[in-house]
Amino acid sequence: MTTNTPLRVALSGLGTVGGGVIRLLDANRDLITRRAGRGIEVVAVSARDRSKDRGIDLTRFDWVDDTRELASHPQADVVVELVGGSDGPALTLARSTLAAGKGFVTANKAMLAHHGLELASAAEAAGVPLKFEAAVAGGIPVIKGLREGAAANAIGRVYGILNGTCNFILSKMEAEGRDFAEVLAEAQALGYAEADPSFDIDGVDAAHKLSILASIAFGTRPAFADVAATGVRHVIAADIAEAAALGYKVRLVGVAESGANGLFQRVHPHLVPIDHPLAHVTGSLNAVVAEGNFVGRLFFQGAGAGEGPTASAVVADLIDIARGEFGPPYAMPAASLTAEPKADSGERRARAYLRFTVEDKVGVLAEIAAAMRDAGVSIESLIQRGVAADGSVIVAIVTHEGPERSVAHALEKLRGSQSLAGQPLWMPILG
Amino acid sequence: MTTNTPLRVALSGLGTVGGGVIRLLDANRDLITRRAGRGIEVVAVSARDRSKDRGIDLTRFDWVDDTRELASHPQADVVVELVGGSDGPALTLARSTLAAGKGFVTANKAMLAHHGLELASAAEAAGVPLKFEAAVAGGIPVIKGLREGAAANAIGRVYGILNGTCNFILSKMEAEGRDFAEVLAEAQALGYAEADPSFDIDGVDAAHKLSILASIAFGTRPAFADVAATGVRHVIAADIAEAAALGYKVRLVGVAESGANGLFQRVHPHLVPIDHPLAHVTGSLNAVVAEGNFVGRLFFQGAGAGEGPTASAVVADLIDIARGEFGPPYAMPAASLTAEPKADSGERRARAYLRFTVEDKVGVLAEIAAAMRDAGVSIESLIQRGVAADGSVIVAIVTHEGPERSVAHALEKLRGSQSLAGQPLWMPILG
Repeated sequence: MTTNTPLRVALSGLGTVGGGVIRLLDANRDLITRRAGRGIEVVAVSARDRSKDRGIDLTRFDWVDDTRELASHPQADVVVELVGGSDGPALTLARSTLAAGKGFVTANKAMLAHHGLELASAAEAAGVPLKFEAAVAGGIPVIKGLREGAAANAIGRVYGILNGTCNFILSKMEAEGRDFAEVLAEAQALGYAEADPSFDIDGVDAAHKLSILASIAFGTRPAFADVAATGVRHVIAADIAEAAALGYKVRLVGVAESGANGLFQRVHPHLVPIDHPLAHVTGSLNAVVAEGNFVGRLFFQGAGAGEGPTASAVVADLIDIARGEFGPPYAMPAASLTAEPKADSGERRARAYLRFTVEDKVGVLAEIAAAMRDAGVSIESLIQRGVAADGSVIVAIVTHEGPERSVAHALEKLRGSQSLAGQPLWMPILG
Repeated sequence: MTTNTPLRVALSGLGTVGGGVIRLLDANRDLITRRAGRGIEVVAVSARDRSKDRGIDLTRFDWVDDTRELASHPQADVVVELVGGSDGPALTLARSTLAAGKGFVTANKAMLAHHGLELASAAEAAGVPLKFEAAVAGGIPVIKGLREGAAANAIGRVYGILNGTCNFILSKMEAEGRDFAEVLAEAQALGYAEADPSFDIDGVDAAHKLSILASIAFGTRPAFADVAATGVRHVIAADIAEAAALGYKVRLVGVAESGANGLFQRVHPHLVPIDHPLAHVTGSLNAVVAEGNFVGRLFFQGAGAGEGPTASAVVADLIDIARGEFGPPYAMPAASLTAEPKADSGERRARAYLRFTVEDKVGVLAEIAAAMRDAGVSIESLIQRGVAADGSVIVAIVTHEGPERSVAHALEKLRGSQSLAGQPLWMPILG
């Protein structure tokens, strides 16, 4: 079943995660050899800057200047790609590695979101592994959980907190009552958020991950272009406070559902009931829920990023490969994944939270209430509150369950109203 | 990698779970074939009573009167054992199936706790799978999570809520302020607890499961005899109320730790801080936490029992086998599992909760406080409260962190004291 020949790895990218993979393999060498049935050895590395001090002795590895050459490295069985980027060198390396009949392990969610189907087909054609546990939810073995653990189930819905930066920001806003921009600036200063944070805070990173989860859960082709992504930029401290008063937390949740109307995929801030496990996911943690027709609700939580957790997932993939325990990357042959139409979100029924920042003048409430009524939106609760700092007034509404289309109509009616001091915020309530 | 020949299954036991496996394979047949790369077909079944109406058409299967004959059934590739019992027919069937060179899938935690090492050795010698995802935490893929998902890590500690019946009882006591005996009787009437509930409520079932988790997490031989098991029988409503007042929930937690002092394994009611994910595990849910040296804390939650979840885990094992993705049952060859000495719990340092039911008379508190002082136990907080119903008085203490041995000494000093109206209850605080 196993052999004593080590699995030989060529590593592209020596940033935080790449360094972590080397440190992990060093620290847990004996244990990994026992578990994998053979050693796992890095034989070659490639990165942009050879001279940079990474605190790791690199002289024991073959240094390769041109990362593309790792694909044909004569000593390597598997290439690990930790360079990132949906196209460019990472994609070139992935294609040429699989074409060369070597296995490929990556943490690159953007590349998988855009090119996963092509790469999976190439891996299957070559009979080699393509694995990417680290691409979704960091150290949490959720790809494995869906691909294998929940494999007996028809999955109706998969959803979760897929971006640690956003969850860190929302948690901090919640704990300290502060607004988004201020907390983001602090997170950037601390290195928890990128200088250009758009991929994280606008939900793109979570959308990449969601498209991967959806494909494995539903047996559908990865359809990143069909993910509707809205991030956390427009959530204000008052939203979190109103949500708390109503018994909810605000979380950026990626939701994918498969049904008669097609494939629904959305990343959006949600109100999460405090008795739901996602409400207790704080800081930079990630968590994923899968709902199966026999297993019920499975919940996975852990560190969604960082050197150690991400390296843990990369090396777990290598151990699977060393054991020979791998198969089609998306749980079934890429050719059998179905192309589902994008579901019309207007037909989704949910309760929703609406927040309006309004002018403090006569008739504002009547105008909002009339727009709701005319669009057929039934109001469950409404709170109007003066917000101290800048004198603005907040109207927060929770609707009864109804189609999203009706809420969109109501907001359309109010567009450009002189009563509103800014864009309203709509958040679905996780059901 | 896969073949179009179906994986042929002989099924022993047609109770709730056995029926569930057949229903699941029927309901999700096409999906499972796509995911497994081949069909999974039950070819033979065996159970005690052929005539019982199970709502399943059994005529399509070969009925085998003597379950032991499934091991040599000419059409079967794999035997699924859902009979239960640590020895007897289940063990006979396991041994003979593996000896016959067929794979074996079981949900039988008691058998694995007692005979897992022998069976794993036999499976490895025969080069066939032995899988048991359903034996621990029902539908949650936690065996896979440890064996594969966390395989890159040295696991320092694995712990969790492993018995749904106990968690159901504790949750109900908590929600309704009622005492153990009353809630147990209700659970029995509803079928949530067995007529002889001892295996569940005395922690034996959780201990079986913990010994399996510990073996996979630490690479140690299964050591069920070394699990110290105490159940929930002695927890009273006042304990849960005092814990709540202090910011804790009471949960039956199985904890296994591997360290310089050996292997520590204990099932015991614990105080769990409300900001710990286990505090939010309610009803009959199960949950497992694994702490790895790179991944940090992984948390898995889901349904720990029942027809659908257990069948989901059994069929996940069958899909792994159909895919050819299996290896040593305990993550590494059974021969390489180490025999660790049982760790001395007296040296463990933790904060602890102590509850005394005392006589309402002068000097009681002084006697308890003196015993603590003399044993070197430092008291962090103490509450004395009259408990309305029966006039008894409760003294609840939380200690500072200290060795368990000191607390045991204090309790020893108080043994037989005329001040105490019953046995004190000690619960460690989960740190």
